[in-house]
Amino acid sequence: MTRFSSSVNSLRSSEIRDLMSLANKPDMILFSGGMPDNNLFPLHQIDEIYNNLTEKEKQIAMQYGPTSGIPELLTSLKAFLKKKGLPVDENKLMITTGSLQAINILAKAFIDPGDTIVVENPCFIGAISAFKSYQANIVSVPLTAHGIDLEQLKETLANAEQKPKFVYLTPNFHNPAGTLYTLETKRALIEILSNQDIPLIEDDAYSDLWYYEEDKEHLTTIKAMNPTGIDVCYTGSFSKILGPGLRLGWMLVPEHIYQKCELIKQAVDACSPSFTQMLAHKFVESGAVYNYIDDVRIQYKQRAETMVAALQKNLPEGITFTAPRGGFYIWLQLPENIDSTEILKKAIEKGVVFVSGKTFDPHGVKNNNLRLSFCNTPVDKINEGIPLVAEAIKDEIKRK
Amino acid sequence: MTRFSSSVNSLRSSEIRDLMSLANKPDMILFSGGMPDNNLFPLHQIDEIYNNLTEKEKQIAMQYGPTSGIPELLTSLKAFLKKKGLPVDENKLMITTGSLQAINILAKAFIDPGDTIVVENPCFIGAISAFKSYQANIVSVPLTAHGIDLEQLKETLANAEQKPKFVYLTPNFHNPAGTLYTLETKRALIEILSNQDIPLIEDDAYSDLWYYEEDKEHLTTIKAMNPTGIDVCYTGSFSKILGPGLRLGWMLVPEHIYQKCELIKQAVDACSPSFTQMLAHKFVESGAVYNYIDDVRIQYKQRAETMVAALQKNLPEGITFTAPRGGFYIWLQLPENIDSTEILKKAIEKGVVFVSGKTFDPHGVKNNNLRLSFCNTPVDKINEGIPLVAEAIKDEIKRK
Repeated sequence: MTRFSSSVNSLRSSEIRDLMSLANKPDMILFSGGMPDNNLFPLHQIDEIYNNLTEKEKQIAMQYGPTSGIPELLTSLKAFLKKKGLPVDENKLMITTGSLQAINILAKAFIDPGDTIVVENPCFIGAISAFKSYQANIVSVPLTAHGIDLEQLKETLANAEQKPKFVYLTPNFHNPAGTLYTLETKRALIEILSNQDIPLIEDDAYSDLWYYEEDKEHLTTIKAMNPTGIDVCYTGSFSKILGPGLRLGWMLVPEHIYQKCELIKQAVDACSPSFTQMLAHKFVESGAVYNYIDDVRIQYKQRAETMVAALQKNLPEGITFTAPRGGFYIWLQLPENIDSTEILKKAIEKGVVFVSGKTFDPHGVKNNNLRLSFCNTPVDKINEGIPLVAEAIKDEIKRK
Repeated sequence: MTRFSSSVNSLRSSEIRDLMSLANKPDMILFSGGMPDNNLFPLHQIDEIYNNLTEKEKQIAMQYGPTSGIPELLTSLKAFLKKKGLPVDENKLMITTGSLQAINILAKAFIDPGDTIVVENPCFIGAISAFKSYQANIVSVPLTAHGIDLEQLKETLANAEQKPKFVYLTPNFHNPAGTLYTLETKRALIEILSNQDIPLIEDDAYSDLWYYEEDKEHLTTIKAMNPTGIDVCYTGSFSKILGPGLRLGWMLVPEHIYQKCELIKQAVDACSPSFTQMLAHKFVESGAVYNYIDDVRIQYKQRAETMVAALQKNLPEGITFTAPRGGFYIWLQLPENIDSTEILKKAIEKGVVFVSGKTFDPHGVKNNNLRLSFCNTPVDKINEGIPLVAEAIKDEIKRK
């Protein structure tokens, strides 16, 4: 009866969201969410920041701000990004309502229904939803341990019926795969995309959460490499380095792309929350952000290494994974004939929850993987929960 | 060279946004913006609220929340809306990142490129941008002093080549026209739309800002009248009753429409800011919102009456307007041959700024109106600025 648009009819609720109610049970061990640990938020710093705001700053916080962001945060965030080597002066910065909004706005700027775009497989679920909501024809290229499969990417670009509108990648600590692209992969990627008239959306929500000094050269973002002949649209987020409840992310993009994105943003929500922008500004400007990242990096590294050790001890033969070098996730590779949704059902019975592989398949099919998040689970719970996951896997392997 | 989507190519920057830089000059008298006065924000209440949050509440504030909103705010806002007679139990409530996002999500839920929708003329600029961004075929129906022109609406619906996907209206204290629909108009409207399979988007950002007790019966929202045979999608906002910098609005819609809107919201920004939701929740739950509305209502009424008096004293013959009964705006009707952009240029030279009429024409043409906001200008500045506006009008009339 109700005549909805064709684009909304292409959207489906995902398994992970259907499972949200389970995740709320108090005694369930959660390896499912991509949210920081509630106990790691810098509450004392935010208290101090709030209580030191002047009346004028509080007024700014309560008022509409410019579409691109409040000038205070634009200035301090530019300095933060410049330290990461990003070309802030040659590009335009826009504060967005979370980095998902940045990705969504870029999707709207480029995608007409039926347009081809290229993503990794697996892929961040929020990006998949955004691209589907504009009825993109999503073509996916597998991830290897070093980054996107370059040969398959070349083939995909050569054989695409329509030139892709963009390529969307998460080179640093991929969600869900945890992968860190090597510098060589990044360089080879630049060569492939250069002068192809195909913009690159580089999702960089996790690069501050590296664990090992020796990885630093690989962490350089493609945007910071300033490749010629590629419009790199760089997106980032405060969700992992301050708090997702602030709903603040950003895009750093070439001027001509920015112009279009600003018009879209004006029609979407006019501006991002000034209130949380003011808090984020003070957090960055004061330098508190650097100490905070140093602190949480240690916590997440410890959790990652705990989970890796527990997996190595408990997993049966034939299950593989790459130990993460940063970020929030471990991605288990299961035998071809195993369905991770079946494992998930068993795991929930045992009191532990994760996310099944097909959630991150842009085509919603491939299900012999699963994602374990260690970001919001303390070490003792990781040691308690991983044996239960391993048991569920063993049960399912036995059943097959 | 860059291959943007066709939808983004249909978006244009508006005159009001091009003039934003002027609005920043310190001595300019501003009748342009639709923002509350910085000096009217309830900063002390927000201080008290923030400093009384428990650690657990602060953690919720920093974390992702459910797509529909944090449960705390959903509960307190439902009670607030119930007091306004809204059918909260028979519908679903979603917190959005400003009410513009609610309108944008509804637009995405219904509009395919080329689809016809019906709006008032003039119309809220944010809604025009949202509808254009989905390439709607916008058909407009004039406003009268009592609300939308019912005869023309009937004709429009009867003659539309394609049945409109929805009708978008602001019955209470229209932006920019200031109009309050009479109860009779609302009833007649319900009769026209009933069982037509055309949803109504009722934008109710201003209804708390009524000035006169005797108008109360006319303030009943169409949603609260619970009309049978019309899917009323009701939208509201914290921007005028707390602060736009929080970026919080809402939609109250039938369940089957909510389901689609939730999927869209998941792809847009995942959830609205938990941080500002927690503050808004406390502001509503404590009852502070009611006292605050009572206070600002008095302020805005005084400003409105001051502006009306100044206009009556200074305007030349042939310029008409309806004295507002609430809200933020006065809409001047100029002679047919007068172009308000020309007046605006002269006004800016004199040190006062407003918004030209065509900004609010969905077709961007009709320009013999102008919008004066009295919401963020104190009484003495209104008395100083209105004679300058009147002079600019006289100058332009003389020139013609």
